[in-house]
Amino acid sequence: MVYPETFTGFQVNGSDTWTEFHKNEFQPKPFGDYDVDIKIAACGICGSDLHTLSGGWGEQYFPLCVGHEIVGTALRVGPKVTLIKPGQRVGVGAQSYSCLDCRQCKADNETYCRKQLDTYGAKWPDTGIISQGGYSSHVRTHEHWVFPIPDALPTVQAAPMLCAGLTAYSPLVRNGCGPGKKVGIVGLGGIGHFGLLFAKALGAETWVISRTHSKEADCKEMGADGFLATADGKDWNKDHIMTFDMILNTASSTEGMDLGAYLQLLDVHGHFVSVGLPEGEGQPMKSQDLLSNGVLVGASHLGSRKEVLAMLQLAADKGIKSWVEEIPISAENLKTALLRLHDNKVRYRFTLTDYEKEFGA
Amino acid sequence: MVYPETFTGFQVNGSDTWTEFHKNEFQPKPFGDYDVDIKIAACGICGSDLHTLSGGWGEQYFPLCVGHEIVGTALRVGPKVTLIKPGQRVGVGAQSYSCLDCRQCKADNETYCRKQLDTYGAKWPDTGIISQGGYSSHVRTHEHWVFPIPDALPTVQAAPMLCAGLTAYSPLVRNGCGPGKKVGIVGLGGIGHFGLLFAKALGAETWVISRTHSKEADCKEMGADGFLATADGKDWNKDHIMTFDMILNTASSTEGMDLGAYLQLLDVHGHFVSVGLPEGEGQPMKSQDLLSNGVLVGASHLGSRKEVLAMLQLAADKGIKSWVEEIPISAENLKTALLRLHDNKVRYRFTLTDYEKEFGA
Repeated sequence: MVYPETFTGFQVNGSDTWTEFHKNEFQPKPFGDYDVDIKIAACGICGSDLHTLSGGWGEQYFPLCVGHEIVGTALRVGPKVTLIKPGQRVGVGAQSYSCLDCRQCKADNETYCRKQLDTYGAKWPDTGIISQGGYSSHVRTHEHWVFPIPDALPTVQAAPMLCAGLTAYSPLVRNGCGPGKKVGIVGLGGIGHFGLLFAKALGAETWVISRTHSKEADCKEMGADGFLATADGKDWNKDHIMTFDMILNTASSTEGMDLGAYLQLLDVHGHFVSVGLPEGEGQPMKSQDLLSNGVLVGASHLGSRKEVLAMLQLAADKGIKSWVEEIPISAENLKTALLRLHDNKVRYRFTLTDYEKEFGA
Repeated sequence: MVYPETFTGFQVNGSDTWTEFHKNEFQPKPFGDYDVDIKIAACGICGSDLHTLSGGWGEQYFPLCVGHEIVGTALRVGPKVTLIKPGQRVGVGAQSYSCLDCRQCKADNETYCRKQLDTYGAKWPDTGIISQGGYSSHVRTHEHWVFPIPDALPTVQAAPMLCAGLTAYSPLVRNGCGPGKKVGIVGLGGIGHFGLLFAKALGAETWVISRTHSKEADCKEMGADGFLATADGKDWNKDHIMTFDMILNTASSTEGMDLGAYLQLLDVHGHFVSVGLPEGEGQPMKSQDLLSNGVLVGASHLGSRKEVLAMLQLAADKGIKSWVEEIPISAENLKTALLRLHDNKVRYRFTLTDYEKEFGA
């Protein structure tokens, strides 16, 4: 069998032309002993793709092909690979490297390794090659960040779980989400809808906290036990003071957010964990807001390999359905989809499909 | 035996005259079934006394007698009291009431009860009487907030533990301080010095983080394993990135504090817990600062009865010595001591003594 030496993908040339996608050939990093080459079948579109291409998160390496919610088929595997077999249906998420040797890596915290690298836009050690993402024909990834997809989980459903799903799932399980717990999900976007689906699947009483009631019907359909809208007025939280065990904050903006009112919802030492990365200068925090119930405010970044595998199995076992809109990959469709994402017009996630048609069988 | 119906103490008339103490008689709340009347022998001077009297924490009820690090002798006990016997040496801290019936109270979180009341400056339910503190002859307190002092612990040592000590001890034990853990104490004032003494007594590797080296020798004498000074320049934290399990922040000001640099010291999901209550508008916090190690930032308020008893026993067992300066109670000495506290000229705590001389035997 002949394996491709170069890959083909849709790249953007700079943040000033971030909606213009060009189909280019590019050189992946050299094939390593632990690497897996994957022929891509589908890829989710993530808010990170937008922030990265449009320059909201700062300078990037261009030309750049984004996309880090990848599902495809393992083509070939390196000589030392033991976790993946050729022919397997597999996924790749937002992280593609860490040292696997430090205190963090050895404690299933490879996400927080100081040497961690992103699936796209990262400079590979030694080679200087910039990693390219899943709006493309293939991806080459170390086996630790390649995840077998359970048979029961459809490809288009699985793709957005690999970043958005994991981003919600990891902080839920790390902060005790489960039976007997009351969990709040702030913001019902792509990540938030996974927060709701997974918190329910994990057995928690799950409430969504949103600005308005516009998504209340969707939340109920996804299984939410309750819904709070901050636009209902200053007493929106008063019937739930100190009753939540944790709150997962998926809002992508802190503008106009009265953090203190959210924190009052938490029981003693409850955790308010944010997974959004708002652009801007941050939010003023007073010890007084944290003190009356001794709460903790934190952030979470992706999750471990073990958590990816557990999440995919949970989704397969419980028949969790991502709310996904399928879009055939093309330069024009990418532009349309990203502009819709920019305008918040997606309920709740896009998955790019029809890769064979665009890149060949 | 005849018990006093009124108590006598040093009160301040308003925040504009906060250094002028007047010796007045005042009426305590009615003696309840669970109350203990205590003849006071000593009382620590706490930063709260200063913030309260000088108006930094907002409007207060005046005239007011502050002081909530009280040690004395139980005189009489109410008919339903089971925890305290007349004649016992006992302490009272900063809290004197909670409902003892809610979810928080039943989980040893009475500190966070929504009905909790302070030892001074709180309006008692029903009576409207304002609670008065320990710069006085006696205090009347529900037995739940009256703590037997172990024999091995001298009165002047025990007094400042009842607020400052507990404020440091509770978050240490609740955040896993113990053998095999590396703990940072930010700020070496009254609370910070207890943080250091207790973290060491609990078996943790304990480092002090201060602005300058001025207190380094004291820290070493108290047993600190290491010392970091932020004034050493921008690399002050670089040899310790992601190595601390928790940081207890006792600094009373956030001005000029580069929070991100402190947070970098924490291992994954480490906790940065503040116990100071800086006056002012709070500190801007970015999710980005929390994200690279998934840390949590929180605050802590006092501690439970169980924790007070455990702390006092630990102090007695390990022979922990508070660094205390003794000051005989008088209007003039209170003024001098509070002005010195205001100017940060105390190493590290004051205890008021000679109560018999001032208030009679």
